[in-house]
Amino acid sequence: MTFKKRTNNCGQLRPENNGEKVVLNGWVAVVRDLGGLIFIDLRDRYGITQLVILPEFQAELAAKSAQLKQEFVIWASGEVRLRENPNPNIPTGLIEILIDEFEIINQAELPPFEISDSITTNEELRLRYRYLDLRRPVLQKFFITRNQAYQIVHQYYAENGFLEVETPVLMKSTPEGARDFLVPSRINKGRFYALPQSPQIFKQILMISGFDRYMQIVKCFRDEDLRSDRQPEFSQIDVEMSFIDRDDIMAVTEGLIERLWKEILNIDIQSPFLKMSYDEAMTRFGSDKPDLRFSLEISTITDIVKNSTFKVFADNIATAGTIGLINAKGCSNYSRKQLDELADYAKKYGAKGLAWIKFTENTVNSPIAKFLTQEEIENIKIAAGAENGDLLLIVSDTWTRAYTVLGALRLEIARQTGIYDTIKNNFSFHWVIDFPLLEFDQESGRYIAMHHPFTAPMDEDIPLLDTAPEKARAKAYDLVVNGSELGGGSIRIHTSDVQSKMFNLIGLSSEEADLKFGYLLNALKYGAPPHGGIALGLDRIIMTLGGTDNIRDVIAFPKTTSGLSLMDGSPSSVDDAQLEELGIRVVKSDK
Amino acid sequence: MTFKKRTNNCGQLRPENNGEKVVLNGWVAVVRDLGGLIFIDLRDRYGITQLVILPEFQAELAAKSAQLKQEFVIWASGEVRLRENPNPNIPTGLIEILIDEFEIINQAELPPFEISDSITTNEELRLRYRYLDLRRPVLQKFFITRNQAYQIVHQYYAENGFLEVETPVLMKSTPEGARDFLVPSRINKGRFYALPQSPQIFKQILMISGFDRYMQIVKCFRDEDLRSDRQPEFSQIDVEMSFIDRDDIMAVTEGLIERLWKEILNIDIQSPFLKMSYDEAMTRFGSDKPDLRFSLEISTITDIVKNSTFKVFADNIATAGTIGLINAKGCSNYSRKQLDELADYAKKYGAKGLAWIKFTENTVNSPIAKFLTQEEIENIKIAAGAENGDLLLIVSDTWTRAYTVLGALRLEIARQTGIYDTIKNNFSFHWVIDFPLLEFDQESGRYIAMHHPFTAPMDEDIPLLDTAPEKARAKAYDLVVNGSELGGGSIRIHTSDVQSKMFNLIGLSSEEADLKFGYLLNALKYGAPPHGGIALGLDRIIMTLGGTDNIRDVIAFPKTTSGLSLMDGSPSSVDDAQLEELGIRVVKSDK
Repeated sequence: MTFKKRTNNCGQLRPENNGEKVVLNGWVAVVRDLGGLIFIDLRDRYGITQLVILPEFQAELAAKSAQLKQEFVIWASGEVRLRENPNPNIPTGLIEILIDEFEIINQAELPPFEISDSITTNEELRLRYRYLDLRRPVLQKFFITRNQAYQIVHQYYAENGFLEVETPVLMKSTPEGARDFLVPSRINKGRFYALPQSPQIFKQILMISGFDRYMQIVKCFRDEDLRSDRQPEFSQIDVEMSFIDRDDIMAVTEGLIERLWKEILNIDIQSPFLKMSYDEAMTRFGSDKPDLRFSLEISTITDIVKNSTFKVFADNIATAGTIGLINAKGCSNYSRKQLDELADYAKKYGAKGLAWIKFTENTVNSPIAKFLTQEEIENIKIAAGAENGDLLLIVSDTWTRAYTVLGALRLEIARQTGIYDTIKNNFSFHWVIDFPLLEFDQESGRYIAMHHPFTAPMDEDIPLLDTAPEKARAKAYDLVVNGSELGGGSIRIHTSDVQSKMFNLIGLSSEEADLKFGYLLNALKYGAPPHGGIALGLDRIIMTLGGTDNIRDVIAFPKTTSGLSLMDGSPSSVDDAQLEELGIRVVKSDK
Repeated sequence: MTFKKRTNNCGQLRPENNGEKVVLNGWVAVVRDLGGLIFIDLRDRYGITQLVILPEFQAELAAKSAQLKQEFVIWASGEVRLRENPNPNIPTGLIEILIDEFEIINQAELPPFEISDSITTNEELRLRYRYLDLRRPVLQKFFITRNQAYQIVHQYYAENGFLEVETPVLMKSTPEGARDFLVPSRINKGRFYALPQSPQIFKQILMISGFDRYMQIVKCFRDEDLRSDRQPEFSQIDVEMSFIDRDDIMAVTEGLIERLWKEILNIDIQSPFLKMSYDEAMTRFGSDKPDLRFSLEISTITDIVKNSTFKVFADNIATAGTIGLINAKGCSNYSRKQLDELADYAKKYGAKGLAWIKFTENTVNSPIAKFLTQEEIENIKIAAGAENGDLLLIVSDTWTRAYTVLGALRLEIARQTGIYDTIKNNFSFHWVIDFPLLEFDQESGRYIAMHHPFTAPMDEDIPLLDTAPEKARAKAYDLVVNGSELGGGSIRIHTSDVQSKMFNLIGLSSEEADLKFGYLLNALKYGAPPHGGIALGLDRIIMTLGGTDNIRDVIAFPKTTSGLSLMDGSPSSVDDAQLEELGIRVVKSDK
């Protein structure tokens, strides 16, 4: 197949090219035969250029153009000229090409959906024909942004003395947290590699090896039941530094964010970012990743109602529970149905119930008013900063659950009252710090690491590990933007004895710790420097930069929430011979 | 753990810093107590700086320094001063730090081998303690080179309009060539993902999607029995372009090589590189990746001996075989033993025997002389450019095997005669082109694709696909340096019908082709542009730049030839519960 190679791409020509002889290659977006004129819109990644044929003078070309259909690949040569009717909406809209020759390079069947930004085709069909979906400029733009981000990330860390080092994809299975994807070994039958959930231990080993500053854009894998914003494989910007403290990691990370937002969106982000403790984030915003673009803060009223005779409050307070509220401003006109829906919403987050108080001109309307004194109601109103016309949503539960529910209600009320519309173009970056080191997992009856078991406890909290481990705080930090976690990191444990103690605390016997993490415990014995790092979710960063909530928009070949790649049909059955070679057999099949 | 953070690293200070107060962090490389002076060499990734204690005035510090052992991590503060006895061999050798304070940040057990460039410790022990091995400057240097290469590669392709796009790691198993690593799916039990042997189809899909220019540094996986220069996971620079021909890919690739060699080694590489056909490479150098740093060419003497009565020659010529030779200059003094060893070496490459002729002052010495006429011997001597003192090594076999054996002998003679010593600092880049499209695989009794089944045949050879497919040449090209393949690529098939025919030729029924590659065949129906690309072996590039023959030197955490990671002990056994969840069972175990 020979074809005339382009002299220019389809997004390039301008009035200053007027009169130039050019060749373009691309896809036929649309053919419009107006009788006296035939227009062909030719598309490639760079743009669209209008080609023109004049049937009166170019009868043969005109006849040939009747063969052209949508998505045919062609080359065309001709002369640039100024349009009589310019299109100011596209960069090439002032010119067109009067073509003197063209040939079809490749034909195309009729696409199952239009290659256009404004389609409503269901996502399943689009994923099946991903190669066509990816032709749509709106999707290509995400990958152009993603490419810009790669370039900035690589340059930024190189400028700051970081070394990119590739860590293995085939590694040891140490499920601690999420499930590992496993890879059976053929050469060592009966044994398995695991795909990395993160290169955490390898990057720590690199610090122990003296690499000093490491970064990598790396694929990570979690075999979890997928939510709509998760993928089984995802990319993170993985960073680790030696001889530093928390503020060093934060400063380097903030510099990257500033650079990304400036170079890609031309938006100035101010650093240093606000730091907020986990406790404060929870008690004020009901989330460890609060959206700080708006206030709508939680008010805690435990003290105000501490002597209440209302049994729900009294019982909860007796077991050290918390009572708090959200003030839905101007929502006192909410109907019974709306309030029921809010209660249902609260229950999804674990609430046992949802109390409310409506303040209107002359009345206080609330199913719990009869349990409260006048003074209590007045103090609640003051604490909530409520005025007539407001609706208070009150939750009484354990500390964690009360704030979690109130945090969810906060977001829902922001949606319902139109707050989100006013802030959608804002970016609010901040750090959440001082996380608890451990949380007690009721299901397994043991402590689990809130971040991961390599996170260092705060120096002053180390004695608590022996007395009240649940009170120990971690040298951990999460980077949050607009209510989403962009990344998280910590200063790591860098001595073998503290690391052993930590494994012990999360219920690993010395033998188990040795079996799973012996190589790290050993490495820590040979002169480990103080070190720490962070992992930033690249997919989430691109979503935030690109302004999409759909993670599949920013991954070229994504999986569905069932882990399927609809385009190529993976995962798929494999030959028995392949399994035989691996020494494994399928014993349970969903096929 | 608090410590004083460094003001400078250990490779930074120079005489111009004389008098400055500094803090360093690092590893104790060595402590030398000279009585009146105590020297501590402090090491980090950036270099080594000498610390000094004067026991006469600093009794306490001196006493404390007795605790210091090799690989302890410390911080030390003090003042830069000029050395009385400069060490011109290291960049910091003109200064030292008279320290006023230091603390041990972390202790270290005695390492199992010395952290030094010149150790002879066996590789197995070094791999087990990879975190210590990686502290050796000679190894760190490879990763600094590797990092430079990453930066150059990312920048270079970005400057040339390429988009980096990540392709999936969890993909469909389509074993065609090497074995796939498989990943059992938990959500879809009984089905498997495969790890990519290359993102070949995905990058073609990206071209069909109009991405125009794609690149990625990507991990690829092959479950093969490993040779010493192979790893189960390896990295390639993966490139694809649309609306181009072979020369465009070559030019872009040559530009990268020039940039890498210039920026990393300050060596000017001239482009365009020499192009040599596969036939020429085989007949002149006996290899499809010839080392062109030296000549030592093969001479083909089939015609000269075509009427020979020597049965070995006559039989071979009767079956269209080839007879060729290598002239080992000055080797007529080779002993019987040396000749036997060469014959054994030839046999490893498939030779049935090795004939030889020695030309000395007055005699022709050869076991086959009696079968040859005087004229034949004289013509052989002329063809070989032989003089007295030379040794001719003659192989008679099929075309492929004769040249393959002679190519191997060529390299062995170059080693034995010292040619390699004279060229070891040279770089000879060239392209091998015009490969056969197919080769016949005796074992499976079918054609297999010499590169891969997506490679386009030459336009003029397309009719051969129906008549004599083994004669069809491919639009394929390999990049070769110094006898190693750095990468390979091709112009791809971009129409569904030619692709179907190709699958058919390599023995896939339409149904099989559809099952395995249906999504590609479909994608090709919707307007595929002409496209092609290349994949460059990143590990091999770093080996060539760094001057090492050991692939494990340039991979941070490599596997052994048995696929083992000795540091972390993977692959390893996993819990039955994990396998249960995946619906698989181990039926054959090497444990």
